[in-house]
Amino acid sequence: MVFDIVIHNGLIITVNSDFDIIENGVVCIKKGKLHRIEARADDKPLPEAEEIIDANGGIIMPGLVNTHTHLPMTLFRGLADDLPLFVWLNEYIFPAEGKHINSESVKLGALLACAEMLLSGTTTCCDGYFLEDDVASAVYKSGIRGVLGQGVIDFPAPGVPDPSDNIKNAMAFIEKWDGVSSLIIPSVFCHSPYTCSEETLKKAKAASDSKGLLLQIHAAETKSEYIRIQTEQHTTPVKYLDRIGILDENTLIVHGIWLDDDDIEIIAKRRSKVSHNPESNMKLASGIAPVPSLLNAGVTVGLGTDGCASNNDLDLFREMDTAAKLHKVNLLDPTVMDARTVLKMATRDGAKAIGFDKHIGSLEPGKQADVIIVDTDKPHLVPMYNPVSHIIYTAQGSDVRDVMVAGRILVRNKNLLTIDLKDILERVAQLSGTIKKK
Amino acid sequence: MVFDIVIHNGLIITVNSDFDIIENGVVCIKKGKLHRIEARADDKPLPEAEEIIDANGGIIMPGLVNTHTHLPMTLFRGLADDLPLFVWLNEYIFPAEGKHINSESVKLGALLACAEMLLSGTTTCCDGYFLEDDVASAVYKSGIRGVLGQGVIDFPAPGVPDPSDNIKNAMAFIEKWDGVSSLIIPSVFCHSPYTCSEETLKKAKAASDSKGLLLQIHAAETKSEYIRIQTEQHTTPVKYLDRIGILDENTLIVHGIWLDDDDIEIIAKRRSKVSHNPESNMKLASGIAPVPSLLNAGVTVGLGTDGCASNNDLDLFREMDTAAKLHKVNLLDPTVMDARTVLKMATRDGAKAIGFDKHIGSLEPGKQADVIIVDTDKPHLVPMYNPVSHIIYTAQGSDVRDVMVAGRILVRNKNLLTIDLKDILERVAQLSGTIKKK
Repeated sequence: MVFDIVIHNGLIITVNSDFDIIENGVVCIKKGKLHRIEARADDKPLPEAEEIIDANGGIIMPGLVNTHTHLPMTLFRGLADDLPLFVWLNEYIFPAEGKHINSESVKLGALLACAEMLLSGTTTCCDGYFLEDDVASAVYKSGIRGVLGQGVIDFPAPGVPDPSDNIKNAMAFIEKWDGVSSLIIPSVFCHSPYTCSEETLKKAKAASDSKGLLLQIHAAETKSEYIRIQTEQHTTPVKYLDRIGILDENTLIVHGIWLDDDDIEIIAKRRSKVSHNPESNMKLASGIAPVPSLLNAGVTVGLGTDGCASNNDLDLFREMDTAAKLHKVNLLDPTVMDARTVLKMATRDGAKAIGFDKHIGSLEPGKQADVIIVDTDKPHLVPMYNPVSHIIYTAQGSDVRDVMVAGRILVRNKNLLTIDLKDILERVAQLSGTIKKK
Repeated sequence: MVFDIVIHNGLIITVNSDFDIIENGVVCIKKGKLHRIEARADDKPLPEAEEIIDANGGIIMPGLVNTHTHLPMTLFRGLADDLPLFVWLNEYIFPAEGKHINSESVKLGALLACAEMLLSGTTTCCDGYFLEDDVASAVYKSGIRGVLGQGVIDFPAPGVPDPSDNIKNAMAFIEKWDGVSSLIIPSVFCHSPYTCSEETLKKAKAASDSKGLLLQIHAAETKSEYIRIQTEQHTTPVKYLDRIGILDENTLIVHGIWLDDDDIEIIAKRRSKVSHNPESNMKLASGIAPVPSLLNAGVTVGLGTDGCASNNDLDLFREMDTAAKLHKVNLLDPTVMDARTVLKMATRDGAKAIGFDKHIGSLEPGKQADVIIVDTDKPHLVPMYNPVSHIIYTAQGSDVRDVMVAGRILVRNKNLLTIDLKDILERVAQLSGTIKKK
């Protein structure tokens, strides 16, 4: 067989169930899928291929999966920091959204986000925002893979001035994008148990269920949310969502910080998933999610960056490093969240969290060829005793050299092939001048 | 006057006492010192200079100050992770040091460290290790600025097989390097209150005092150290050090995690300094230093990465991001450790912590020209509402384009000018093959 692409001369971290690591590895790709992943025998020529990629001794691994983003919010990166959550939201973010979020700016912000994600090794994102149809156009253009959720909230939102239209809009988004591309899977992003009524929550779940799609929901993020739900519903956010039938295997709980032991048991029993966003949780001082306990209970936890207004980047390499370290110091136990656990979280488990694990998240024959190559020929990556440790604790997004999604090369030698970066940066800089003046 | 170097077309973050930020700034350098730092008037030509550097719209700022390193430990980067502290030390680090640390490997490891630091925008380090004379040779060769401390410990150590020679060796190091170069300031690195006797601690302090130099000491790092000092000395590590006369304005307490309110008051009263190493403290699960309380008490706190065996890099950009976020989530207060406070910690306050604040740490006329230029023409740094926020929360070491120390250009367009990087990387890779086999 003549393959489309053969990658060689690199160390492969497969993130398969045995966590196989293959020195001097060869990856063979045909029609967007992985065919063979193997060590190269010294005396064997390379398999034939249309294109041969030399990894130059670097690391070949699955592309990273970002389980929680608000892509257009790149436009508000660093607009307001070091503020109490409600000042940040009510005085900066909501007014900026009201004034500057429209179809065009959403596309621009989402393209900027895709550029940043691709250049730092992310090949799949799970997004929730408004005007998600425009987000989807940008994601589609960039070539990145996305589970994209139209926002549902009981307040006027960009593109949904009348909140009573929120479910209708979400359904229209699903109908439009369902089946258009194997790279774009629609979803519903139901904002939270404190911004959506019980009726809205149930209808949003029914909408995503109608097509067997993912429901994303912020839940148990802040202490104030926890207190509010306790006051209004006389139980915890998770028990409330469970009581009204929102939690099942197609539900992704985003943040999941304020959880008690019973909440964790319920999440495990319902087979719901959790998106862990440590850097956003730290910066907004929301709290530390009990991730080691969730993992012990058998819950699938993926990693996410959250939006750029609260992180302030979309770099999963930084997020992995932080996730590995934060829980160690929080539990005063250096053995929790070891490098392999965290790498799984950013790849295979992330894929599972958003319902994509049959297709992506590891380098295994039959899966989609979502592959990145990390350049290790740099002072901060030398020496290398353990490549997984390097990916978690030392490598940076800027070390990513090549990126492909479904066998399509999107980044080559650190250059984006699908996005006119110069044009995007100029247009964002122009728009930000207007946003700054508020 | 014809300047040696003029930098223009960038935004200057001065980190002076008013934290002046100058758009379209010009920095004029002569004989290694900063002369003028000002906004460029539109109609004015640039000052004359031997060399004009166009910052291309990026950020011009003081070089970063790393207040705690063990440079040769780059050789053990990622050798052992996710382990309890004493397993990590006794089963991996100490044996590797015993077998592989010698004059040649120390120089090699220190050069690798200098390469990594310079490429990520650090212009000054405060180091403590053994065979520090070899560290000093490497630091001198690289052109980076260093406060360098010969290690003192009551155990056999590399280069000091008989611990009763430890003070004599430290004095010999001081005598050799005192006054050799304005870039190298000798110091004493007294390991800790649990690895040095009271007599050794006092003699080490007397040695550094004899020339008015800095004493660096790990203290109050782990709970087990705290318990041990409580058991043996019936008080806290800080009160023990104070009781025996170790704490004054020339003492740098490294880590300072297990501190009570009285300890903080004592540190403030003695005008001792603290080096905060959040990423190492997180990874080794040592604990979270009460930095906001130290700052409130008026203590000068600098930022450090610690050695590469416990971090696993020397990148102060990552350390700044982590420092800013960790204390917010720890105190559930998003307003603590704001971006300016953290940037000060990594520059001016770091310089003060190691006794260098008259000469470096900010861009002000009369100070040394330790300057870096950060390239901001990248997706993750666009838009830019607040440059200080970007430096703390978004920029990476790899965004640093140019680096100079005392007006000498050491990194130009991301290329190191003083170190043969290819040679170093090859030699380290070779040596690490031997270390791996232990």
